[in-house]
Amino acid sequence: MNKRTKTAAVIIIGDEILSGRTQDTNIQTIATRLGEIGIALSEVRIIPDVIETIVSVVNEIRARVDYVFTTGGIGPTHDDKTAEAIAKAFGVELERNAEAWRRLVAYYGDAAEMNPGRARMARIPVGAALIDNPVSVAPGFRMDNVHVMAGVPKIMEGMLGHIVPTLEGGAKIHSLSVGTDLAESVLADGLEEIEKGHPGVSIGSYPRFQPGRGPFTVIVARGIENETVQSSIDAVAELMRRQGGTPQYS
Amino acid sequence: MNKRTKTAAVIIIGDEILSGRTQDTNIQTIATRLGEIGIALSEVRIIPDVIETIVSVVNEIRARVDYVFTTGGIGPTHDDKTAEAIAKAFGVELERNAEAWRRLVAYYGDAAEMNPGRARMARIPVGAALIDNPVSVAPGFRMDNVHVMAGVPKIMEGMLGHIVPTLEGGAKIHSLSVGTDLAESVLADGLEEIEKGHPGVSIGSYPRFQPGRGPFTVIVARGIENETVQSSIDAVAELMRRQGGTPQYS
Repeated sequence: MNKRTKTAAVIIIGDEILSGRTQDTNIQTIATRLGEIGIALSEVRIIPDVIETIVSVVNEIRARVDYVFTTGGIGPTHDDKTAEAIAKAFGVELERNAEAWRRLVAYYGDAAEMNPGRARMARIPVGAALIDNPVSVAPGFRMDNVHVMAGVPKIMEGMLGHIVPTLEGGAKIHSLSVGTDLAESVLADGLEEIEKGHPGVSIGSYPRFQPGRGPFTVIVARGIENETVQSSIDAVAELMRRQGGTPQYS
Repeated sequence: MNKRTKTAAVIIIGDEILSGRTQDTNIQTIATRLGEIGIALSEVRIIPDVIETIVSVVNEIRARVDYVFTTGGIGPTHDDKTAEAIAKAFGVELERNAEAWRRLVAYYGDAAEMNPGRARMARIPVGAALIDNPVSVAPGFRMDNVHVMAGVPKIMEGMLGHIVPTLEGGAKIHSLSVGTDLAESVLADGLEEIEKGHPGVSIGSYPRFQPGRGPFTVIVARGIENETVQSSIDAVAELMRRQGGTPQYS
């Protein structure tokens, strides 16, 4: 197996998630889309709208993963600091990008409509490639392996749709799961043995608690080789039966 | 103003969020509960079940915030590595905790029911204080300022309920918001001025996109002094009216 699974990190920029005001959904969207092409998230950071923090986190992470995706902080208001921070992280200037400006003027109808807030959305680091925004025009951008996207989920999804075809995928991780209404503690010993017996497969145990109905445990097997993943999940189902449970496939 | 707002970080441990399989909800729960007592989240990390990663992230973060909260990885299965990692981070042994063992034996009915998986949940770093688990008994624990909780939301909430009264809160951040169906770009310039005119208040702009109905922008003002927050949000509502919008309070 020469092909490896590629790695990615997500950096969520903005106080709205940290304050608990907003429930993030972008992480799951990005993880799912990237997983389909063999790119696995290895870490996520959620950080505030503080330029120094954004600069240091981006520079720390972009060196160790194949792809970085940021969401948030590229709108028209004073708390949108991501473009400035990315320019700083890469040691380049922030300029009025001619193409971004053109798109925004066309969207707002006239250059006279370009108030300072709207003009702010045309500020792009020198050397960046624009990422199309099919919802509200103001573009994201890519610097090297760092993809800078909007935080609004609908806009983020639109941008991600443009980015995904440009990425070089890796070895896809196959994932199979089976659940049962047993506590994970009766499966634990057997699971470890099954994982040991299936090299290249990682087995995760995800319990949940059903109020009034007790535990339910989902076991997920993941790996690059489809057949090994399948035989490991068969072994898990057999373990569930041996412990008195009924395997449920969803 | 002598009292400062305290800081906290959340570390979500586990592949299920990174793979996109599970939508995290613990961040929002923790952020909201802590915010009520004047503790603000300054960062969140989502990391895999890898001991070296957990050790380095915990040690990096616990030095710079008042409180750390981890979720996930304290169950009975082989992929539950958090207790071992925390012991390593603090340079102490992992031992069978007598009280945790007693609770688990009482829950499962007999010491003979303590298979290796269940016994695993009694392994606690030496010197840690237990955190009660009102749902499924297996405790979390606290080492210094690091609170180690389960990942299952119902159990995490139960543990958090026990932890919150033990924390020393800080200056509470008052938050007021007002929304309108204008694009944030027509408010941007005015918002920056309002923020400048209200020291100690931070003003955030949170746009969303309503398919078929266009933009909706919520402006949130946050600060320690209630009156300044109130007067800044009044100014925001006035700005919205000036731009032709109707302020909506939710």
